[in-house]
Amino acid sequence: METLETIKTRRSVNYFESGKQIPVDKIKEIIGLANLAPSSFNLQPWEVVLVTDPERKKALRKCAFNQPKVEEASAMLIVIANPGAVEENVDRVLADWVKKGYMKEADVEKQRGTPFGLYGERASETRKIFAVKNAAFFAMNFMIAAKGMGYETHPMDGFNAAEVKREFGIPDDRIIPLLIAVGHLRPDQKLLPRAFRRDVDDFLRMNGYAKG
Amino acid sequence: METLETIKTRRSVNYFESGKQIPVDKIKEIIGLANLAPSSFNLQPWEVVLVTDPERKKALRKCAFNQPKVEEASAMLIVIANPGAVEENVDRVLADWVKKGYMKEADVEKQRGTPFGLYGERASETRKIFAVKNAAFFAMNFMIAAKGMGYETHPMDGFNAAEVKREFGIPDDRIIPLLIAVGHLRPDQKLLPRAFRRDVDDFLRMNGYAKG
Repeated sequence: METLETIKTRRSVNYFESGKQIPVDKIKEIIGLANLAPSSFNLQPWEVVLVTDPERKKALRKCAFNQPKVEEASAMLIVIANPGAVEENVDRVLADWVKKGYMKEADVEKQRGTPFGLYGERASETRKIFAVKNAAFFAMNFMIAAKGMGYETHPMDGFNAAEVKREFGIPDDRIIPLLIAVGHLRPDQKLLPRAFRRDVDDFLRMNGYAKG
Repeated sequence: METLETIKTRRSVNYFESGKQIPVDKIKEIIGLANLAPSSFNLQPWEVVLVTDPERKKALRKCAFNQPKVEEASAMLIVIANPGAVEENVDRVLADWVKKGYMKEADVEKQRGTPFGLYGERASETRKIFAVKNAAFFAMNFMIAAKGMGYETHPMDGFNAAEVKREFGIPDDRIIPLLIAVGHLRPDQKLLPRAFRRDVDDFLRMNGYAKG
């Protein structure tokens, strides 16, 4: 599908065709495309639990205020933000940049401190914001790639994060910015008109707030 | 451009063709497409300062560790996350949902508390995370829409947020998750090979961490 058409027709779908699956390899292909999202200092602080097993979907539904779409969707993604990605990935990022000509070996030592300066201490609020921002890039890229391949999605906030962590063995230091339901629109359902968006001029200021 | 092709070829470009402009109406069109991003409870907690004026770009460059691309790009977006969007937009969201058949008028009173429950008090960390997550959806959608229309982008973290706020009159309670440079690739520059991404199997777990 053409890019702008994909963006225009992507909707958050509430009614999925229950029992209609997407092959796991296809979902992994979408995740691979989503994984091309940019990230801060290329640190890629996202992880995913892909829930396809019917019993595990049932368990996830219980953590998500019993919303039917959790079981009806072909699969559920638990999108996870990892504040520890700085420590985990910084050396790999720098080595890759040197190898590919982005920077000189001699600058590695100096640059290594940059993400710690920009994104703060591991347990800090700035570090959480860093992780969530980039996981959200990944999530948006996923929703567009899925739509581009003919699937529907729904980003979900309605869940108890502590319960999801306990149920799926997700470490305590992670943040779960959202779940994503992915599947096929139920054939008997028509989409309601898209919910309102503000006019661009309502939130866009030219060259600064004062001049807006 | 085809959606998956757009996702595959979108890169963070460091060298923009200086002096080559994008008409402001065209940038607004991209922002309008980005604005179709989904958001938590449809609260749309994003704002944008669009910087096109050469003097203002120069001022922004000073807040961004003097990076040349701030002046070389056709335009800069200051992407802003507004934690106060819950209070500002909740009534408009609910009225729109009632009007379009998403919910009954009788449920408005009950539903009004939901986003306050999910996203916490106005000054809380959860509220900041809510705002940043959704502003990042908007930003990713913008980068894809821009690429789909033939433009290049670069999401930037290298700036001093306090200086940007002061220089552009941005209220203190806002968060600036990133700047985005948008423009045309400088013709004399070839892109280096894309920086590494982890294999999907390195960050994807099937049905839970324990079973991963």
